[in-house]
Amino acid sequence: MKKSNLPLDSHRLWSDIMALADITDPARPYTRRSFTAPYLEGRALIAQRFAETGLTTRIDTAGNLIGRIEGRKPELGVIAVGSHSDTVPSGGRFDGVAGVAAGIEIARSLRDSGTRLDHTLEVIDFLAEEPSEYALSCVGSRGMAGLLDGKMLDLVEPGGEKLRDALRRVGGDPDRLDQAKRGDIRAFLELHIEQGVVLESQSLDIGVVSSIVGIRRIEIVFEGEADHAGTTPLGLRRDALVAAANTVVVIRRLAEGLDGEGSDYFVATVGVLAVEPSASNIVPGRCRLIVDARTTNPALTVRFVTALDSESKAAATAARVVRSAFRTLSDGPPVACDADLQSSLRAAASSLGLTQTDLPSGAGHDAAFMSRICRSAMVFVPCRAGKSHTPEEWADQGAVAAGAAVILRAVKALDHALQEA
Amino acid sequence: MKKSNLPLDSHRLWSDIMALADITDPARPYTRRSFTAPYLEGRALIAQRFAETGLTTRIDTAGNLIGRIEGRKPELGVIAVGSHSDTVPSGGRFDGVAGVAAGIEIARSLRDSGTRLDHTLEVIDFLAEEPSEYALSCVGSRGMAGLLDGKMLDLVEPGGEKLRDALRRVGGDPDRLDQAKRGDIRAFLELHIEQGVVLESQSLDIGVVSSIVGIRRIEIVFEGEADHAGTTPLGLRRDALVAAANTVVVIRRLAEGLDGEGSDYFVATVGVLAVEPSASNIVPGRCRLIVDARTTNPALTVRFVTALDSESKAAATAARVVRSAFRTLSDGPPVACDADLQSSLRAAASSLGLTQTDLPSGAGHDAAFMSRICRSAMVFVPCRAGKSHTPEEWADQGAVAAGAAVILRAVKALDHALQEA
Repeated sequence: MKKSNLPLDSHRLWSDIMALADITDPARPYTRRSFTAPYLEGRALIAQRFAETGLTTRIDTAGNLIGRIEGRKPELGVIAVGSHSDTVPSGGRFDGVAGVAAGIEIARSLRDSGTRLDHTLEVIDFLAEEPSEYALSCVGSRGMAGLLDGKMLDLVEPGGEKLRDALRRVGGDPDRLDQAKRGDIRAFLELHIEQGVVLESQSLDIGVVSSIVGIRRIEIVFEGEADHAGTTPLGLRRDALVAAANTVVVIRRLAEGLDGEGSDYFVATVGVLAVEPSASNIVPGRCRLIVDARTTNPALTVRFVTALDSESKAAATAARVVRSAFRTLSDGPPVACDADLQSSLRAAASSLGLTQTDLPSGAGHDAAFMSRICRSAMVFVPCRAGKSHTPEEWADQGAVAAGAAVILRAVKALDHALQEA
Repeated sequence: MKKSNLPLDSHRLWSDIMALADITDPARPYTRRSFTAPYLEGRALIAQRFAETGLTTRIDTAGNLIGRIEGRKPELGVIAVGSHSDTVPSGGRFDGVAGVAAGIEIARSLRDSGTRLDHTLEVIDFLAEEPSEYALSCVGSRGMAGLLDGKMLDLVEPGGEKLRDALRRVGGDPDRLDQAKRGDIRAFLELHIEQGVVLESQSLDIGVVSSIVGIRRIEIVFEGEADHAGTTPLGLRRDALVAAANTVVVIRRLAEGLDGEGSDYFVATVGVLAVEPSASNIVPGRCRLIVDARTTNPALTVRFVTALDSESKAAATAARVVRSAFRTLSDGPPVACDADLQSSLRAAASSLGLTQTDLPSGAGHDAAFMSRICRSAMVFVPCRAGKSHTPEEWADQGAVAAGAAVILRAVKALDHALQEA
């Protein structure tokens, strides 16, 4: 690996990432929640970099911030690169931003080397990739794929604002989303930190993403009876938490079984479990949990949900409570990354002398929605100890630059390869 | 049973209970949280009834509201009756208040029949029997028993006020608590709704309480790692909720085992279980639960805690998390009610033609603290479907009056029986 010889300016790329890190909710770095003031401030900096690089800047009706430079043969369509600039609460400095900054640096390197592509190049900062206050993730890439529907636009954040009004507030237009839907993009490439330990543990430079997991989210609610914790004999209780706890135990057991079967990736998590009324001397009367199941093989999700349905029903019966909800909140199918783009990325990494492996992505990404409308693929770069969604999230300067260089090489190669309009 | 022939005025008693029910936080009837404006308004009504009945009224340094009528032989000491007028949030109209109103009606009936006792009679409205915002229950009866210590007075509610300042605000004096400690009370009798279904299911009028359960509260905290729910393989997770869920399952199993062994009462409840960071796509990094274990036999608590200690440690190890806390928050031993007072209550119920049984109390009561400084006993009256700590809490007019009449009879009998000063 010759990171010092990369065909782009790693310092310039790094300084953009650090400048964006400085734009944060001061109370909890590094936070730029979508639709907030720090988020818009971050986007202003990105728009400024677009302008300095000679890209024309616009916000599409789905709220995506897009920098664009026309190709010599605009009829060939667009090659797009990018990611997102919003973060989770107390998030990190790299998740999302690294891919946007890489896009800017790729455009700058092309400009500096006097390279004009045949294809039009777009650098995209997708709106609200992280689960937003409106309980929806990937708002912008859903919009670009034509998948942002009226029901989603009616989602409301705790303060009472509808997503459709928030979208208008950041420059989108919920009444003209058809204009955001794209049919002219030929390829989309996204750089992202791995958010896992595969690359670090094997000391590899580059991960070429083979597939992006499907995510099924299920809400389960158990309703029992909020009785006195002292005077209600065990046999007369209808304890919602007992049903929920047994369900959490079952979920872990089912997930381990499915993951252990073979080569497919499967994980399931209960990240939210809320007890009501939540007093030490009252038997829990209601318990709500959210299950997050992810896999590269949708058949495993089907088996998981079928087993969870019957086991959670049994847990309710055993605890004498009612399972009042078993509801799919969202269901994104797994997405295989485009085989030709993966080949281009592998070839680019090899030509740069970088070590690499193929690996699936356990996290969702904008690239999964982009794959509905164009060839899409992703490059992962290592991050320290696999940590992400935390202030400690870290990727080395050289690692991010190496990933950006791979995408730059692949963009150039694809510009030649994708010549049939 | 001849409820129509009771030696007191059931309508007058009922009207006091209903008048107090009307004094509530309007947003969530029936709520008079200790130390709040509705609570003080309720106490003003109680003080007015004391005055109308010819009782001298005072607030002791522990914040208890006391009505008193001197006996003909004051050197014999005091016979006290009462309970508390505070409620849980969205509580009921009877828990506590019924016992205070019964005390008032007993004093009124004695006055109306021209009966002057040899003993001084006190009617006590104990301060803050329910767990208060300061995370302490039975504040007033602890104070009267000399058990309200400096550490408790330093407890702080979410708004930042210390219990010692709140106590001052309601007329107590935290610097002179020694004056609240009593050595002159010869007997204490408390009327309370059962908060269970024993009396109703057996169609009985009166429960003579044999013992009041001991309550042990234990806080358990599991600390793992808040990792990405998509990218963290199951085998690398340190999921705090998995450890907590297994512990909830274990607690139920242990409790059922101990309760099923024999005649001793044993229940255990996890009423509080809080997950952090509580996001659907993040593996729980921290989980805190509060265990409430109650029994009439302290040996069972010891065995429960020993087993819970080792099983929760094992759950932590299995989930690769740290059990960072296993702490006793409070530990009140079980209390046997005074045998002579129980006999008096049984005799009084029989003489009134009321059906009765002995039964343990699964709930804590002021009587448990009073038993530290004097003979104490309790009368339970049936409540509908065992419901308590909810707006639906209900006891019939005749049922409450019957319980009050039993205590009135017992007070008269004890006035004769307890003549050795």
